Formats: sequence, C-alpha cells, structure tokens
Amino acid sequence: MARVLVLNGPNLNLLGEREPGLYGAVSLAAIEARLAALGAELGLEVRCRQSNHEGVLIDEVHAARQDCAGLVVNAGGLAHSSIALADALRAFAGRICEVHLTNVHAREPFRHHSHLAPVADAVLCGCGPLGYELALRFLAAGATP
Amino acid sequence: MARVLVLNGPNLNLLGEREPGLYGAVSLAAIEARLAALGAELGLEVRCRQSNHEGVLIDEVHAARQDCAGLVVNAGGLAHSSIALADALRAFAGRICEVHLTNVHAREPFRHHSHLAPVADAVLCGCGPLGYELALRFLAAGATP
Amino acid sequence: MARVLVLNGPNLNLLGEREPGLYGAVSLAAIEARLAALGAELGLEVRCRQSNHEGVLIDEVHAARQDCAGLVVNAGGLAHSSIALADALRAFAGRICEVHLTNVHAREPFRHHSHLAPVADAVLCGCGPLGYELALRFLAAGATP
Amino acid sequence: MARVLVLNGPNLNLLGEREPGLYGAVSLAAIEARLAALGAELGLEVRCRQSNHEGVLIDEVHAARQDCAGLVVNAGGLAHSSIALADALRAFAGRICEVHLTNVHAREPFRHHSHLAPVADAVLCGCGPLGYELALRFLAAGATP
Amino acid sequence: MARVLVLNGPNLNLLGEREPGLYGAVSLAAIEARLAALGAELGLEVRCRQSNHEGVLIDEVHAARQDCAGLVVNAGGLAHSSIALADALRAFAGRICEVHLTNVHAREPFRHHSHLAPVADAVLCGCGPLGYELALRFLAAGATP
Amino acid sequence: MARVLVLNGPNLNLLGEREPGLYGAVSLAAIEARLAALGAELGLEVRCRQSNHEGVLIDEVHAARQDCAGLVVNAGGLAHSSIALADALRAFAGRICEVHLTNVHAREPFRHHSHLAPVADAVLCGCGPLGYELALRFLAAGATP
Amino acid sequence: MARVLVLNGPNLNLLGEREPGLYGAVSLAAIEARLAALGAELGLEVRCRQSNHEGVLIDEVHAARQDCAGLVVNAGGLAHSSIALADALRAFAGRICEVHLTNVHAREPFRHHSHLAPVADAVLCGCGPLGYELALRFLAAGATP
Amino acid sequence: MARVLVLNGPNLNLLGEREPGLYGAVSLAAIEARLAALGAELGLEVRCRQSNHEGVLIDEVHAARQDCAGLVVNAGGLAHSSIALADALRAFAGRICEVHLTNVHAREPFRHHSHLAPVADAVLCGCGPLGYELALRFLAAGATP
Amino acid sequence: MARVLVLNGPNLNLLGEREPGLYGAVSLAAIEARLAALGAELGLEVRCRQSNHEGVLIDEVHAARQDCAGLVVNAGGLAHSSIALADALRAFAGRICEVHLTNVHAREPFRHHSHLAPVADAVLCGCGPLGYELALRFLAAGATP
Amino acid sequence: MARVLVLNGPNLNLLGEREPGLYGAVSLAAIEARLAALGAELGLEVRCRQSNHEGVLIDEVHAARQDCAGLVVNAGGLAHSSIALADALRAFAGRICEVHLTNVHAREPFRHHSHLAPVADAVLCGCGPLGYELALRFLAAGATP
Amino acid sequence: MARVLVLNGPNLNLLGEREPGLYGAVSLAAIEARLAALGAELGLEVRCRQSNHEGVLIDEVHAARQDCAGLVVNAGGLAHSSIALADALRAFAGRICEVHLTNVHAREPFRHHSHLAPVADAVLCGCGPLGYELALRFLAAGATP
Amino acid sequence: MARVLVLNGPNLNLLGEREPGLYGAVSLAAIEARLAALGAELGLEVRCRQSNHEGVLIDEVHAARQDCAGLVVNAGGLAHSSIALADALRAFAGRICEVHLTNVHAREPFRHHSHLAPVADAVLCGCGPLGYELALRFLAAGATP
Repeated sequence: MARVLVLNGPNLNLLGEREPGLYGAVSLAAIEARLAALGAELGLEVRCRQSNHEGVLIDEVHAARQDCAGLVVNAGGLAHSSIALADALRAFAGRICEVHLTNVHAREPFRHHSHLAPVADAVLCGCGPLGYELALRFLAAGATP
Repeated sequence: MARVLVLNGPNLNLLGEREPGLYGAVSLAAIEARLAALGAELGLEVRCRQSNHEGVLIDEVHAARQDCAGLVVNAGGLAHSSIALADALRAFAGRICEVHLTNVHAREPFRHHSHLAPVADAVLCGCGPLGYELALRFLAAGATP
Repeated sequence: MARVLVLNGPNLNLLGEREPGLYGAVSLAAIEARLAALGAELGLEVRCRQSNHEGVLIDEVHAARQDCAGLVVNAGGLAHSSIALADALRAFAGRICEVHLTNVHAREPFRHHSHLAPVADAVLCGCGPLGYELALRFLAAGATP
Repeated sequence: MARVLVLNGPNLNLLGEREPGLYGAVSLAAIEARLAALGAELGLEVRCRQSNHEGVLIDEVHAARQDCAGLVVNAGGLAHSSIALADALRAFAGRICEVHLTNVHAREPFRHHSHLAPVADAVLCGCGPLGYELALRFLAAGATP
Repeated sequence: MARVLVLNGPNLNLLGEREPGLYGAVSLAAIEARLAALGAELGLEVRCRQSNHEGVLIDEVHAARQDCAGLVVNAGGLAHSSIALADALRAFAGRICEVHLTNVHAREPFRHHSHLAPVADAVLCGCGPLGYELALRFLAAGATP
Repeated sequence: MARVLVLNGPNLNLLGEREPGLYGAVSLAAIEARLAALGAELGLEVRCRQSNHEGVLIDEVHAARQDCAGLVVNAGGLAHSSIALADALRAFAGRICEVHLTNVHAREPFRHHSHLAPVADAVLCGCGPLGYELALRFLAAGATP
Repeated sequence: MARVLVLNGPNLNLLGEREPGLYGAVSLAAIEARLAALGAELGLEVRCRQSNHEGVLIDEVHAARQDCAGLVVNAGGLAHSSIALADALRAFAGRICEVHLTNVHAREPFRHHSHLAPVADAVLCGCGPLGYELALRFLAAGATP
Repeated sequence: MARVLVLNGPNLNLLGEREPGLYGAVSLAAIEARLAALGAELGLEVRCRQSNHEGVLIDEVHAARQDCAGLVVNAGGLAHSSIALADALRAFAGRICEVHLTNVHAREPFRHHSHLAPVADAVLCGCGPLGYELALRFLAAGATP
Repeated sequence: MARVLVLNGPNLNLLGEREPGLYGAVSLAAIEARLAALGAELGLEVRCRQSNHEGVLIDEVHAARQDCAGLVVNAGGLAHSSIALADALRAFAGRICEVHLTNVHAREPFRHHSHLAPVADAVLCGCGPLGYELALRFLAAGATP
Repeated sequence: MARVLVLNGPNLNLLGEREPGLYGAVSLAAIEARLAALGAELGLEVRCRQSNHEGVLIDEVHAARQDCAGLVVNAGGLAHSSIALADALRAFAGRICEVHLTNVHAREPFRHHSHLAPVADAVLCGCGPLGYELALRFLAAGATP
Repeated sequence: MARVLVLNGPNLNLLGEREPGLYGAVSLAAIEARLAALGAELGLEVRCRQSNHEGVLIDEVHAARQDCAGLVVNAGGLAHSSIALADALRAFAGRICEVHLTNVHAREPFRHHSHLAPVADAVLCGCGPLGYELALRFLAAGATP
Repeated sequence: MARVLVLNGPNLNLLGEREPGLYGAVSLAAIEARLAALGAELGLEVRCRQSNHEGVLIDEVHAARQDCAGLVVNAGGLAHSSIALADALRAFAGRICEVHLTNVHAREPFRHHSHLAPVADAVLCGCGPLGYELALRFLAAGATP
C-alpha cells in the first residue's frame, strides 16, 4: 500500500477557527480524519503533518523522499514566498498536488503566484476542504496524461 | 436532477490527436462519455459542448443561465485573453469550476493568468482528463466553504 | 437623412437581466427603441445590431462603411482585448463614439484600457443607458472642435 | 431649482486662443453662456468657476458641498496629477461628471489616467465644448443606473 | 503536388480599399490570383481563405492538418491577441510562415508582439503584398537551416 | 545597374561552423556567392561586407550613402543593442531590409527587440540563408506598398 | 520654549465632517486645541496651520525655518504627489514627523508612497487624531536613535 | 487589566550592539523593561517575546489570540517577506500596531513595503525605541477613528 | 528690444541659503541682477518672477504670451510633477529653455524626468547659476537648428 | 589561527543525492572534510553548519559574530528571499563570501537576484563544490582591493 | 592655457548632410573651427576628435586623462547604450559637459536616458551647434556651484 | 599543456591608476605576470589580451576557438551591454569563467545583469585581482559538477 504525505503549512492549524466564512468551519483534525478514511478506500496510507515552521516542512519533505509515493501540500502563505520549500519539492521524485482552500486567483495579487505551483504536477484551488480529497484521488489515479 | 454544462473551447476538439505527450491520448468524445457516466452516479445531468468560436461559447453560457446549476469550463487559449467570456460567466448564477488539462503554471508565462479564474469558484489544473471528473465532484458537493 | 450604426457587443443582450444594480434594469430592446425615437428627432436613422461574436461585429462595421455616417459602439469586454475590431473601426471614415454603461475607471484595472478608445472620436462612460442617447447627440452635432 | 458647479482648471481660461485646432475656437465665456441657457432649460442653476490654482479649485469644491447638487469638472492637467483634488471630490455628496474637451485616450500616455475618473460618476471625453452640455444633461437625468 | 494554405484574418478582405497608403492598392483577390500562379510555378497548390472570425480561422487550421504541407498566415489584429489561434498553429505539423503587410515594428507598440511569431518558422513583415510571394518561396524551399 | 550593400555583423563570419543546427551549415562565402548570382539575375550589383566591429559597420553604411540604392543588414547581436548603427541607417536614403537567420521571436526575450527594425522597410527572420535572397528580391521589387 | 509647526494640507479642514467613519468625528479645531494643551505639557509651543494650497504650505515651511525647532506634517493628498513640498522640507533643519490619520498602507496603492516620507525623521499612520499627539511626543523626546 | 504582546523578530536581539548609529544603543532588555513600566502606567500587562524564527513568531501570535487584546510587532526583515506571519496577524482579533525603529522609507527600496502593514491598524516608523512606547499608547487609547 | 521671462518655481527663493553645497551660495536676487546685465548686453529685456505657487507660475506664463519672445524656466520640484505648467508652456509661442541648477540625472530617480522638458526647445542642467546665463545666450541666438 | 564559519542552508544536506547532474555527486560531509583540510593548509579553522531553518541560520551568524573572522554562506533558496538572513550578515563584521554551486544566472529568473549578494564581499557561482574551496582561499587572502 | 577635448561619436561626421531639418546644416568641421576660435577667446586650447568606433572614443578619453582639464562629449547613439564609455569618463578627473544637438527629451523614449549623464557635471541638449559653445563657456567658468 | 585566454575589456588597461580604492592598486601587467606564474604551476599556458574595442574582443574569442581550452573574461562595462560578445562566447566550446574585480551586486543596478553570465560556466565577483587566479584554478580543475 502506497504512502502519501499530506503537508499543511503556517496557520492551517487554525482551520475551523480562523475566518470560517473564508476557510470553512471544519477543523484540520476533522479533515485529516476524512483523508485517512478516503485514503484507505483508495489504497493509500495517509501521513498528515502540519507546521508553522518552514524548516520543519522542508525536513518533512526530505523524510518523505524515503517512504512516500505522493505528496499533497498546502503551504499557506509560504506558497507565495518560499523558494526553499519549492526546492525541497524539486528533490521529491513522486507526484505532487498543491492545494489551496480558497480560490487564490480571486484574492489579493500576492496570492496569485505560487513558487510551488511550477514544481507540482497539479494545482487545485477554491474547493475548500474537499480539495484535499480530490488531491488524493488525483494521486491515486496515477500518471498524467 | 441538476444539470451541468461542460464547456470546452478552442482546439480541445483535437484532444487525443494533438501533442498526446502533453494533452493525453484520450479523445474528447471519450472524456465526455466518462463524464456522462460519472454525472449519472453523482446525480447530475451533464451537457457537453465544444466550440472554437468565442461567440458560440458565450451563447452557450447565456443558454446555461436558464437551465444549468453548475458549469465546468476549459476555455483553452481563450482563458488567457477573453474578458468577454469571463463577463458571460459573471452573469451565471451557479457554481463554476475552471479546468486546465496541463499545469499551466509550469508552462509559458502567458498561460499563468486566466481571466476566468477570478470568476470561477474553483480552478483545477494539471490533472489531465481526470480534472473534468474532479470538477464534477466539486460541483456535486455543493457550496464552499 | 444620415444613418448611424449602434453596435453592441458580447453580453449586452443580457441588459436588464444581468446585475441590474450595475448595468441597469432596462432591456436592450427598450434602449434601442428610445434611440430610434431620439434619432428621428435629431434627423438620424438608427440601425441597431448586437452580437456576441467578434467576427460578426467586424462584419457589421465593414457593412457600415457603405451606408453609415456615424457609429456608436459598446463592445463590452472586447473593448479591452480586440485589436481586430479596433482595426475595423480604423477603416470606418465617419465619426465614432465609444460608450460604456458603467464608469470603467472605477472598476477592475483591466477595464481601464480600451483598444477602441484611441480610434474613437469621443468616449462616454458611466452614464448608463443615457450614454447611448448622449452619443447620438454627439454624432448629430457634427465635427469637433 | 437645483444648482450645479461647472469647474474648469488650469489653462482652460485660454479656450478659443490656445491651439484652436485641438481645443476649438469657442471661448470659455461663450461656453459658460451656453451652459447657463441649457441649464435653465433643464431646470438647473449653473455656477461657473475657473482657476489655474489647485487650491482654489479645492476650495470651490468644498463650497459646493454646501449648496450644489451636482458638479461638472474639467481639471485640465491636474486631472492627471492631483490626488488632493480627487480627495476633495470624494467629499462631495452629489453626482460628478468629468469632462475632457479632447479624446485623451488618443493623446500622450500621461493623459490616459485621471485621478478624478474613479471618483466621478461619469466621464465624457472628446466631445469638445459640447461635452459640457452632455454633462449637464447627465446630471439633470438623475441617478444611474 | 504539395498543398499550402494561405490564411488571412480580420480586415484583410478590405485590402486595396482600406488606407491604401499603408496597405497598398491591390485587392486580396488580386493577391490570391498571383499566389496561385506563383504556386503553380513552384509546384505548390495554393488554397486561400479569409475570415473575420477567429473561430473560422482556427477551424481552417484544423482542416489544413489533414491535407496541407505548409501554411502562410496573416492574422491581422488577431496576431497580437489570439493565443487560441497560436495554439491551433502549434498543432499543425508543417512549416508556417507569418506575414505582415506593413513593418509592424515601426508602428504602435501593441503591434510589436505577435503570439503567432514564436510558433511560426519564419516571419516576414513590411514587404507589402510581395510578402506572401516570398513566404511561398520560403515554404517551397524546404527545411531550415 | 543598381548597387546593393549586404552587411553582416558580429559572429556571422562563423557561419557554417558555429552551431550548424541553429544557423545552418553554409558558410558566409557560399551565401555571398549565391547573392552575387541572384543579384545579377535581378539586375543588382551586390557588395558584401562583414565585420565584428560596430564602428566598421557604421563606416560601411556611411559609404553606401554615396553609391548604393538598397541595403540588406544582418547585424547579429548588435541589432538588439546598437542605437548608433540604427542612427547610421536612418541617414541612408535607400530601402533597407533587415534579415535574421533564425526566428528571433522563438528565442531569448532579449532577441525579440531590434533597434534596426523600426528603421528598416522590411524585416525577414527565420528563413535561414534563404532570407538574404528574399531580401534581394524585396529590394529589386521597388517601393511598398 | 521650543516652537513646533503643525501643518495640515488639502481637505483636512473638513475633518469631522468628511467620511467620519474613515477620518473620525473630531474637527481640526478640536485637534489643534488638544495639541496646544499637550504641547504646553511637553514644553512645546504649537503653531497650527492648514491650507488647501501647496504654495501656502511651502511658504509656511519656509517661515518655520526661522523660528521652529520641529515640524508635524499631514499633507493629505499632496504627500503622494508634491516633490516641491518635499524639497521645502529638505531645507528645514529641525526634526520632522509625517502623520496620516488613516493607515495608508491598507488603502489604494497610490497612497502607499509618500514623497515626504524619506525626508521626514519619522512617519506615523493609522492612529487617527491621536497620531498628532504621538508626533508631538516624538519631537519632544529629542534625537534618534 | 488588558494584556498586550510585544513581538520582536529576527536580529532585534542584537539591539544596542548592531549598528548603534542606525538602531540606537539601547538593548532590547532595556526597552522591554521600559515597556513594562509604561504598560503598568497605562493599565496594560505587557508580554515580550523575541525570536529569529518565523515559525516561533507565528506560534506566538496564535497564542496571543487566546489572551491578548493588542499586539505590537516589529518583525525585522520578515516584515518585507513573510506572508505567513501577515496571515497569522489576520487571524488576530485585537488591535495591531507595527513598529520599525528606523524610517524604512528613507532606506533601501525593498524595505518600503511591509506585508504586515495592511493588516495592522497603525504603523509607526523612525521613532527609534520610543516607537514601542508610542505604540503602547496607541493600543491603550482604544479604537480609531 | 525683445523681452524674456525668467521664471523660477518653488524653493528657488531660498537660493544661497538652502544646501549651498548643492545649490550654490549665490542668492536669487544676485542671479537676477546678473541676468539683467547680460540681457542688456545681448539686447534682451529680462523680466524675473519667482513663486512657490503653481497657479501663479501658470498665470505668469499666460501673461508672457502677450509680451515675451522667450522664456527661461526652472520650475524646481514642479518640473517633475506639473502637467498643468507644461500645458501652459505648450500654449507659449516663443522659444523655451528649461534650466536646472544641479545635474538632475546624477540625483534621485524621480528627478530624471521633467514634464517640461519635451515642451522646451532646450534643457540645460548642472551648470549652477551660470545655466541661466547660458539659457539667455541660447534665446538670444535665435532658432535651431 | 582564525576561525571561519561555512554555513549551508536549506536542501544542501541532500548534496550528492539530489539531482547529481545539477549539483554534483559529492556529499556535504565530503565537502566539509575537504574544507577542513584546506583550511588547515591555509591557517584557518573551519566550522561547518547546515540547517533547513532560516532561524537557525540567523542564530549561527549571530554566534559567529563572537568568534569568527570570516564567513562562507550558501543559503540555498533563502538567498533569493530572506531579508532577515541578509540583515544578520549585515551585523557580521568580518569578510563574507557567498557561494552557489550552480551558475544561478543561467537558471530561472528568480535565482538571478540574491538578497545576500550586496551584503557579501565576494560572490562565486557555478564552480560546484570547488566554489567553497575558492571561497576559503578568498577569505585567507585578506582584504580587497 | 588649459586644454579641452571635444569628443564626437558615431554619425556626427555626417553633420550638415544628415537630416538637416533635425541636426542643422552646419558641418562638423565648421563647428570645430568655431570652437577653436571661441576657445582661444576663453583661454582654452580645443582638441577635436570624432569617431564612429566606441573603442577609439574610449582610447581618446584615456589619452585626455594625461593632458586635458575638461571634456565636451556628444556620443551620439552611444550615449544611450555604452556603459564602457561612461566608465572611461568616470576615470577622467576634470570637468565633463555632455552635449546633444537635439532635445532628446522630445524624441523617442530610448533617447531619454544617457549612461553618460550621471557621470557628467552638466548636460546641455537642444541648443543645436551652439550647445558646444555653451559647453566651452561652462568649462571655462570653473567649478560648480 | 592546455592554453587559456585571459581577456580583459574596456578600461581595464587603467588598473592600478583608476579609482584604486575601488579597483585596487595593482596594474594589469602585474596581474598578468602573476597569472602566467600560477598558470605554469597549474599546467596551463596563459595568453593575456586587453582591448577597449568590442570588435577586437570578439576577434580574440574567435581566435581562441582554434587553440584554447578555457577562457577567463572580464569585459568591463561591455558585460552589461554586449550581446555580440556573449554570442561570440556561445561559439566557444571550452569552459568560460567570468570575473569582475568588484562585487557588482553591491553597485549600481545596471551592473547587476551581465549578458555574459548565462553563457559562462562560472562567475566570480568581488575578489579583486585574486579573482583571476581563482578563475584559473576553476579552469584547471576540470568539469562541473
């Protein structure tokens, strides 16, 4: 059974509390539980990590190089500023799906560009918590095109 | 049973023939057949339209205002240039999911910006033909967040 | 009696229905009726055309080269993207007045620039449906300055 | 009977003398006389002011807050540089119509942007002296849309 | 005998009538006749098409994928705005030569960039109607370098 | 018999040796021989010069003011940086055709702009060595349009 | 006892009346009274001036060169456009504190840059009327760092 | 008694040692002691934290959501690059005052823009260590305007 | 005897006092005395005006239209921001020479562009007070080239 | 014997494993061993540190202020985004040499600018692991020029 | 008697022949003769050099370091592109006056910026051949301010 | 024994004389002597050339294609403007190391970009004359990585 890392970055620990009108009312724990269940259904073991520290996120990506076949990443604000995290993802051999809860293209201009996007295989934004589930389905489906 | 319009723009009639290494080897007809099947499973009636003419696409969006609850749109190159199509989507009351077969963020700079993206609710790119299916799932799942 | 073409572009067929708070509650048919009446008063025969197709609009401008002395044009979203339509207007010998229902300068940046504006003799924006009537008056008044 | 301020900025006192091929051969006094007459016809009392001093123009706008229901403004070169005048207009509660004698969009790039335009309700350019009259008609017609 | 498509876009049906000082006094029909003759001389069958509709032009390119070995394209104003037409050309396997009647580099800045140019094999501008003939010669000469 | 200067700039002396996949396998001497022959056929005397020195190229253009009726110029990298050479061409009364062996629009962005292009009458790029021959034909054909 | 000039620019005479939700409900006179009182407490004599005329503001700065040890300036919209006022401040030897009532960084982009800011010693924005009091405290506290 | 977090970012632990001509000779500990004293006077309990780690600063902001009514933040170089920290501040309900010791507008261009500024209520720069005290006074004074 | 207006803008009344290392130690009165003397020598009557008010400067240019054959202008900071003053100069029929005491191209970027420069016939910068004298010589010498 | 800190940032722990075609096949440990040996030869004690955490890197620079005379830094992706790390280096009194393994100027545009470069004394890029050794030699050689 | 170098760059050997409406009808030899005469009057020995070769111009500046006290330079098109010539001027200890015959600020945008201008002490443009004489007067007058 | 060309461009003949505080007090001859000695030590024959003429530098690179295995280039100001020299280097098959004496990233913005850098294998800046020696060591060390 393939393993997948679901990596959440800064402020996503506040999901369900922070601006629920924008980010939804579901907590990260609840989302992670759903992903575990869906993963099981799709034949994927799901490892979930969240950190507000860029360095920890990079360490997690490095660790995933050893034992994960795919990676779902929502780096929060770091998506728009962290070349270092993007470089870590470049060193990851498996498939990568970037997720944003909100439709970043309908928000402030500084959210329109993600350093991670050109490194990822797919990018999903605006689907809310469902986005993580769609990302799992994408990883489960295998190579594109 | 809710109806959904799946709208494909210029050059997508060539799917399966054109640069299969980039866009995949599946024809548009095959994709549309899969969407009909998945729609049935999700309780959605799927209407598929493709045109190389911007005006026809706008007319289709106008028609969908009467009888569709959601819209999946892959406008091809028009995504990056057509304000008129984006304005037509602004006049559509239901949910909208933009789809790109390829990860546009890993391609030429002129593909990084879509006039449709800020009008859509969600944007999925880089999932290949599977992207249309994930879009249907998004529409079926109801409102965000 | 001089003839004038009033040309409306994409999405303007939705006038009265689409975002009435922004574009007004009057239908295009009602506006065109008013223009016919005002035209008669000013000694102008008014021909009205609307299309969502850039090519049709260009064809209409070409036709007007034969039998119209003036042109009122609201190209909707094409104003901001269509060099081809602007080139068609460059080939029109009579006076041209561009109209926008809303004050485009108070909206999104991509609406601030019109490819048609430098080709037109006058540009009126933000007057709502009344703008078309003022445009007729401008055409009826003859040359500037 | 509602009162309207027609405010002209720097260099407009030279109308009729300065580059008549560009700005027309009619003097400002003659234009103001026409506006008084048309205003009477439309039920508007027209107060005309011109100054080459930004500060005086701002003072006039402040005064108009007390006793005018509408404002026509052609700020000349200040339109492109004066945020202070735009801020004064922001503090005016009535309707505002910006006028330019020439089609600024067909001239030098620095004339394409007006700080006043996003504060105004409507913007008319390229109609020559007639533009002031169309502006009065716009103010007389009441709210948009 | 190889077949070549000569594709003309918006406003080129006006050749000979529109601004002859800029675009020349020869009609499109006359140019096409010359091209047929030169083609015969060079061993090329020349198919000529003109449309003011972007969609029709794309359809023509798609059709040419079946039976043409080369393509001469003058897309008029669409050269500067149509990513969709450029994408259609990307799907064409034969050689492509873009032609502009005028030297676009000596005109307005928005004419300096063509979306088609990086897709074409060669670009000829400023040669007037002769440019089409030179383009035929280029296609007849075979591969570069 | 009219005389024409064919002027080649920096690095074009390496033709045939340097990156033949990009610039072709034909030497400059061979190209110049072909041009002499074609010139004879077209009634043009062809003078060929090459230098890696901007100053020498300018001197050659000055000399051509005395005895040449036309000029073909491929300035290599200087096309993108030399205003001084462009000014020299401005002082040349005859017709000028700029040539690039490769399609510069499909290469690095700094090659997209040529200081010489707006001074030239025509610009041909991407035709390989054949481009020089087409340029001769253009000069032989007389004035545009 | 040191003297300090508190200089307010265009539209600040409207404080308390204009958009109180944005600028507060306190009049300029009331603010100036508070500043006189606080000045006395801090050992500063406070001279207050307001004008809508850039020239008058410059004259006031020139006068303050003779008899003031510090300067508090809120130039309103002129902060973003007046190089002349900034140059006047450059000629003032004492300490300068720029004040904005609102947080200009959370407003329109043209308010993000102040020509006065690089000339001032300190810049306070978003504190409302309290900002003037904090500025007095800064001037009273002497040199930085 | 309300609690306030005073949060200092990278390199501010060096205060008093690093470039004293620029940042002053007072240590961070001395500043924090003064703030505690002033806080007591103003009825505020002051909690001081410093870290060179972006992640720790975000964690501190998250913690302050539970028990602080206001926040003073000097994020050092992170002010100009950390969208993640700005997002953390967006999730803080109380009032926020950004402080810079130096006048960033008189320094390198990359210091002119702060990602935190549009999230803060007020921004104070160039006041040296006194700036923290003024920030406390701002927080103590309650809501603006 | 021809009359010439020497017009000085904001802050130039401080010449000799303000930053003498940058602007020189000579007062404006002394400069004007020298210009009167030199003017007499060159057969020019020199009228000198200085104001810190843009409106007054514009009024002076308007007055000069009646009785001056040439104009020397140093608009101080207004050179970089006042389109209105530039427009006034456009309405002046005689020759215009812009003067800057310092070499503006060696100073801050916002001083590199002058709105007046493209309207002037000549621009002299960096000559210190001597620049005014050279400007008089230029006006006395008659038309260029 | 002088001490030197060799500081490596995010992802450099993967040296030898990650994209060896780009970054080389030598591990960081092997490089550090070589540097220790070369340092001994040059009379330098070499302390090596690597971290994926910006905060840790800043802490290391702070520590080096106490006991190191020179600093070699390869900050990986942080070079392009971390103003905070650059500020830490500004507070370091000794000589600094920035190293990049690859020639960043031949890679993506976002790698062309380093926030550290203007703070460093020297910058070496594209030398692969040898670059660290050249950097040691530079530090050993003493002051420039 | 001090010596001054008057250095003219590319295409200035054509003065009097090239576009006399723009550059005047006086030859360079005639100008140089005038300068010798005026120099004698002012106590300056004038050495004149012209070259179309950037390298020769640099060599001349190097030579002038040995025996010239001042330098007048009109580098033609090289002013806008040659950093190498500007660097040569940086190594010249005497005073430098840049001259342009035409008012470059009223011409194409690429002529608005000169690499030499920030290195020069003064810049004179638009005075035609008289500009060289004014430049000599500036050099003769000694130091600014 | 492999041969290496050390190529110096404009103004580097002044080394030791020009701004020694910036470029050092060592003459180019002394540097070249050192390089010959180090080359001998490393098994490299070093050929040194300097010219202020771009064309000569290009000729030298062409010659080096015949008999040199590596190239050290410091093109002075041409690094920032000469695409022609960069193209010459593109035609050189051996390894290339660009050198700048100063840290160009800490100087004027126009020195931050080098046209040669993306063509070189390595770039060393800020090491003073030692940089040439490090460059020799790089070339002697063989291929990267």
